[in-house]
Amino acid sequence: DHYIVCGYGRVGQRLTEDLEHAGRDYVVIDQSDEEIEQLQDEGRLYVQGNAEDEDTLNKAGIDRAFGVILALPDDSSNVFVTLTAREMNPNVFILARTVDHRNRSKLLHAGADKVIAPSEVGADRMAQVILRPNVDQFLERVLRAGALSLQIDEVEVLPGAPLAGQTLAESNFRQQYDAIVIGMIDQSEGNMMRFNPNPTSRIQEGDILIVLGDPEMIRTLRDQGCTPAT
Amino acid sequence: DHYIVCGYGRVGQRLTEDLEHAGRDYVVIDQSDEEIEQLQDEGRLYVQGNAEDEDTLNKAGIDRAFGVILALPDDSSNVFVTLTAREMNPNVFILARTVDHRNRSKLLHAGADKVIAPSEVGADRMAQVILRPNVDQFLERVLRAGALSLQIDEVEVLPGAPLAGQTLAESNFRQQYDAIVIGMIDQSEGNMMRFNPNPTSRIQEGDILIVLGDPEMIRTLRDQGCTPAT
Ligand SMILES: [Ca+2]
Ligand SMILES: [Ca+2]
Repeated sequence: DHYIVCGYGRVGQRLTEDLEHAGRDYVVIDQSDEEIEQLQDEGRLYVQGNAEDEDTLNKAGIDRAFGVILALPDDSSNVFVTLTAREMNPNVFILARTVDHRNRSKLLHAGADKVIAPSEVGADRMAQVILRPNVDQFLERVLRAGALSLQIDEVEVLPGAPLAGQTLAESNFRQQYDAIVIGMIDQSEGNMMRFNPNPTSRIQEGDILIVLGDPEMIRTLRDQGCTPAT
Repeated sequence: DHYIVCGYGRVGQRLTEDLEHAGRDYVVIDQSDEEIEQLQDEGRLYVQGNAEDEDTLNKAGIDRAFGVILALPDDSSNVFVTLTAREMNPNVFILARTVDHRNRSKLLHAGADKVIAPSEVGADRMAQVILRPNVDQFLERVLRAGALSLQIDEVEVLPGAPLAGQTLAESNFRQQYDAIVIGMIDQSEGNMMRFNPNPTSRIQEGDILIVLGDPEMIRTLRDQGCTPAT
């Protein structure tokens, strides 16, 4: 249940830092001596080689990996590795970066589960700075890895959790956890998303709660039978 | 009070669409015949020319512009235009895209108010897909321009607004607007941000409320004396 990060350029490096910070297991694939030296200095797990080779993906444990993250410098490599990884492990989650947003459909057809185009994400972020500057600042603070005062996060309601079966009002959520539920996802209903659920909404086993609250509260929720949704 | 978009590449085009959608005034600067033809086809305001020339910025109305958005293909041009625009209008808001995140400090020193590096924003977004997939989907839906069911947005409490002076509980916010206040920004206290404010928090004139609710509700809030914070 580890992640394989292909490509240790700008995007790969920043992403790996975030995985490290969150305590996730990962291994990085890169072929350049320079990047490998940096990975050694940083004490990170790596495989030196070309991610397009099945051998390299095997060494990185593709058969038991939870996800493959593609941040190779050109889209043709990302497409090729997507096809290979999908063949080698039908269940692995494949997330790909695309340099040119017009290659999105090629990556999806090759088997990627999700494609991110930094140019699009960057443009949307710039629009947000212009159109909703305060929302932008708010989200910047609550989404930061290691946010101190407040975070938006997700918790899954496990079978037998004390919360299961209660309405939001009955759970006394706000007083109990100093947090609010801004979304509820019903996994038994094809991941139906209820936004801004009202106090009479009932928390069910298997639901995923999107909460805004103290990072400490998330630990409390886990102790009470919710675990982080992964 | 318009925006000047410099560069009509991938980022500039997407950004311009968002401005158009939000009903903001803008003019695009680009020098290539191909992009100008596209701008004509789309019926958008433009100035053909090099954004590095003061003449071009003058034609685009730099003296009375609210903001300059820099999405030129190389960072040296973005730095140069930042310096020029800052000289020509000390109060204009300058938002710059940087290709290489290591040029961030150069752009800030040149006078940019905010710098966005798509590679960083893209990496953070990829990390969010891995670490908090449900939060990612939730935000994707509520931040989309033209979100139908729910939006995160910001409203300013104008002098004389009925809401001013009431606590959140007194305002009956949730019942009144089918929305929740997830943040309050006190502009009179150096933009102090209160996260997840509790029911006894008092709404003051000049506060900016970060709300999660129906887009229709935002219109209602405006009618009652709140305006969109700009
Ligand atoms: Ca259910
Ligand atoms: Ca105040």
